[in-house]
Amino acid sequence: MNFDPRLYLCTDRGLLAGRGLVEALEAAVAGGVTLVQLREKEAPTRQFYEIGREVRAATTRLGVPLIVNDRADIALAIGADGLHVGQSDLPVAQARRIMGAGAIIGCSAKTVEQAGEAVAAGADYIGTGPVFTTDTKLDAGNAVGLARLAEVAAAVDVPVVGIGGIDQANAAQVLRAGAAGASVISAILGAEDIEQAARAVREAVEDGLRARTD
Amino acid sequence: MNFDPRLYLCTDRGLLAGRGLVEALEAAVAGGVTLVQLREKEAPTRQFYEIGREVRAATTRLGVPLIVNDRADIALAIGADGLHVGQSDLPVAQARRIMGAGAIIGCSAKTVEQAGEAVAAGADYIGTGPVFTTDTKLDAGNAVGLARLAEVAAAVDVPVVGIGGIDQANAAQVLRAGAAGASVISAILGAEDIEQAARAVREAVEDGLRARTD
Repeated sequence: MNFDPRLYLCTDRGLLAGRGLVEALEAAVAGGVTLVQLREKEAPTRQFYEIGREVRAATTRLGVPLIVNDRADIALAIGADGLHVGQSDLPVAQARRIMGAGAIIGCSAKTVEQAGEAVAAGADYIGTGPVFTTDTKLDAGNAVGLARLAEVAAAVDVPVVGIGGIDQANAAQVLRAGAAGASVISAILGAEDIEQAARAVREAVEDGLRARTD
Repeated sequence: MNFDPRLYLCTDRGLLAGRGLVEALEAAVAGGVTLVQLREKEAPTRQFYEIGREVRAATTRLGVPLIVNDRADIALAIGADGLHVGQSDLPVAQARRIMGAGAIIGCSAKTVEQAGEAVAAGADYIGTGPVFTTDTKLDAGNAVGLARLAEVAAAVDVPVVGIGGIDQANAAQVLRAGAAGASVISAILGAEDIEQAARAVREAVEDGLRARTD
C-alpha cells in the first residue's frame, strides 16, 4: 500500500493520436510519472479488461503502481494495486471491502466534508479538483481552485493530490498549496514528446516540494 | 448455487413506464418468475449500486435469487447471488475467480462452441438467443432460432435458458426444444398487468416442460 503520489498520470486514450497506450506509459514513467490510473469511461467491460491486462503488465515491468478508475471488477480481474472512486462511483467503504485491506483506495473530493467522509470510510488518498479549468474531463465542473486544495490538504491526514488543468507552468503551485502530488492527463498524454512533457511537470513538482520545505 | 431457471426475468427499467422496479419485481415473482437478473447498461456505478441494493432487498424478501448483468463489482457490493456475463464482458474464468465458488455464473452463448468454452471455464448456466427476433436488446443480433437452442442444450451439461422474443405464445416451444427455462424481458415488464403476464408465461413454460416429459 506504499505509493508515491508526486506525479500521478490518469490515462485518456483519446489524447494519444494513434500512439499506443503502453508506449505512452513507458515514456511517461521514463519522464518521472510515479503512479498510473487507468481510466476508460466508454469501453465495454471485455475491452477495458483486455487493455487493463496490457497496462498491468507494463506498469509491473516499469515498477509503478496501477490504480483503476471506478471499476472494482476490472481492478480485481487484472490484479491492479488499487481503485479510484468518484462521488458517482461505489462508496469508499464498499470499494475497500471489495478490494481488500491491501489495496490503494483513492476518492475524488471537492470539499473538506467529502474528503473527511472518504478518509473515515477508508480512503488512502484524496483527489481534489479541478484545481484549474480544464477541457479533459468535460463533466468535472468548475474549478475549485488552489485555496480549496490547500483547505482539503490541511484537513485530512492522507495524501491529497491536485487534479485538473495541471501542467508544467502551474504544478509547483499545487505542491506549494499542500498537495502531495499532481495528477495530470493532457499536459503529458497530449504532448508530442510524452517523456519530455512528463519530465517538465515532474521538475515543477519537485520545485514546488522544495519551495514548501525551504 | 441452487437455482430454478424456469422463468428468468431480466430487468429493463425503460419498459416500466413510470412504475417502480421493486413493485414490478414483486408482481413478476407473484406471477411465477423464479430468477431475476438486474441489467443496467446506462446507469453510472453509484446509481447501479443504489438500485441494486433495493433490488437485493426485494429479491431476498421474495425468495428468488438475484443475478447481476456484466458488473462483478456491483454484484459483490450488493451481495448478489451471481453474475451473468456476455461475450463482451469479463471472461467466465475471471467472473468465477472474482465472484467465488458459491456464486451462480451465467454466460451468453450463441453457438455450441461458445457454450462449451463457457462451461469449461466454470459457467453454471448458459443463456442462448435471441431465440426469436426481439426489439428489447437492440445489440442482440439476428435470431439464432429454436434449432440452435436445441443444439446448445443437447451439447452442454448445465441448464440452458432461451432468451429473446419469448412470450406466452412461444415459451412452450423453448422448453420443448430442451431449454431449462425461458428468459423474458418485455413480455413481462412491458405488460400492463405484470403479475398476470408473468403467470401466463409461466403456464406456457410448464406446458412446454410437460410436453417434453410426456
